[in-house]
Amino acid sequence: MTKQQLYENSKRKRSFLCIGLDSDLKKIPPHLTTVASDDPVFAFNRAIIDATADYCIAYKPNLAFYEDLGADGWLSLKKTVTYLRNNYPDQFIIGDAKRGDIGNTSGMYARALFEYLDFDAVTVSPYMGEDSVKPFLSYPGKWVILLALTSNQGALDFQLTEDKNGERLFEKVLRKSKEWATDEQLMYVVGATQSQLLQTVRQIVPDHFLLVPGIGAQGGDLNQVATYGMNRFGGLLVNSSRQIIYADSSIKFAEVAREEACKIQQAMADYC
Amino acid sequence: MTKQQLYENSKRKRSFLCIGLDSDLKKIPPHLTTVASDDPVFAFNRAIIDATADYCIAYKPNLAFYEDLGADGWLSLKKTVTYLRNNYPDQFIIGDAKRGDIGNTSGMYARALFEYLDFDAVTVSPYMGEDSVKPFLSYPGKWVILLALTSNQGALDFQLTEDKNGERLFEKVLRKSKEWATDEQLMYVVGATQSQLLQTVRQIVPDHFLLVPGIGAQGGDLNQVATYGMNRFGGLLVNSSRQIIYADSSIKFAEVAREEACKIQQAMADYC
Repeated sequence: MTKQQLYENSKRKRSFLCIGLDSDLKKIPPHLTTVASDDPVFAFNRAIIDATADYCIAYKPNLAFYEDLGADGWLSLKKTVTYLRNNYPDQFIIGDAKRGDIGNTSGMYARALFEYLDFDAVTVSPYMGEDSVKPFLSYPGKWVILLALTSNQGALDFQLTEDKNGERLFEKVLRKSKEWATDEQLMYVVGATQSQLLQTVRQIVPDHFLLVPGIGAQGGDLNQVATYGMNRFGGLLVNSSRQIIYADSSIKFAEVAREEACKIQQAMADYC
Repeated sequence: MTKQQLYENSKRKRSFLCIGLDSDLKKIPPHLTTVASDDPVFAFNRAIIDATADYCIAYKPNLAFYEDLGADGWLSLKKTVTYLRNNYPDQFIIGDAKRGDIGNTSGMYARALFEYLDFDAVTVSPYMGEDSVKPFLSYPGKWVILLALTSNQGALDFQLTEDKNGERLFEKVLRKSKEWATDEQLMYVVGATQSQLLQTVRQIVPDHFLLVPGIGAQGGDLNQVATYGMNRFGGLLVNSSRQIIYADSSIKFAEVAREEACKIQQAMADYC
């Protein structure tokens, strides 16, 4: 999917919502795991997707939740991506994997995530530098979403370290990495809990899309994110996971998830 | 496995060799993929393990190579770990995954890698800080191997950045993270291609084990690594992957792999 298509989807739906499919077998509604279903995680995802697709422009399964189920989890994940591709071709599908390894090994991850699983985009960690990221950038039409400034407390440990010129690590990651690819291939993760730093981020990467986790359960503020993070292409994908997908655990879970997604979309509509 | 056990295994075998099971379906001997085998990757790993176990004290499958095969790859990986557990209980089994995510998500990765796959140790990326690493440290008897200074060219991009006090990022990672756990739970990845920096690493973490990739195909030098990296517990696991496992692609591949592993072990014996 191109940047322009993403922008158009966002305008048409008046939404920049990405829904995180952090689907944990221990947290999904009990009736899905107790009735006869050979794949309760996929059944959950399908119901959530069908209920919420009107209100979002992207879905983001986090691979940890699927790997926890081993080979079965990979099958649930593959079925979920295929289901999205076949039924909601306008949805942008992000594999939240936070991978990164030496070049030839990153190449294997890229193949797994872009070919086997057919994600549109993959989150990648910058710690190992350019040659660990480049193999993910060699797939036409696919995207790398590089971790820059994350939404967790631990972001303070290293990402904000200032070098001797006063440049912080996340700033250096943005500045260096934007030379590796265009803004048609590269986005950045910037946590909503760091919204006071969004202006700084926008000075370095004015035209890139940003994937912003941390709205909802992690405490980020949508208004601040939109005010400081939007650009002339929209330029934002704001993720919400638990607040939507675990809003209810009864037989009405999908309906309640739809209501939650709708509420967020309505709040976003003012900015689109 | 405890640090003392690892040390004793190293003394007994006069080896600190770790063999990387980067088992790529496209690179393993063709006869394994053309004869009737329902799991050529596992067949390859089993043959390599049986041939080389006398000469090494650890095995390190890199998850990228298994994920590339999707759910089937996860099954091959699980069978490989189980085979090692059942037949070579003195081998230390490292899942080279380079994971790291926000706390609850890292917890899911930890469960996948320590419970479902039963690794002894997992490589973790430090970029997201303490709360992304901590969940991996809550498993008694299991280890985190944190990326500090990697063996690839991209290590220069961020890991060597000096802060305003002259501390480089990898030094900060070592200094801060050693407060998160003891040297009975935490090791570090330090690339052999950075052997001139091993003395610096040893000043900060004198007692920790180091996992050193980059010997062989990546150009590292064993003598330098041993000279600057060893401590009173041995303190080294030196990894070699391609040089051993792909030494030969004929029907004699396992025999040739054994010879290669033996050569490295003999070079290591002088230091044990």
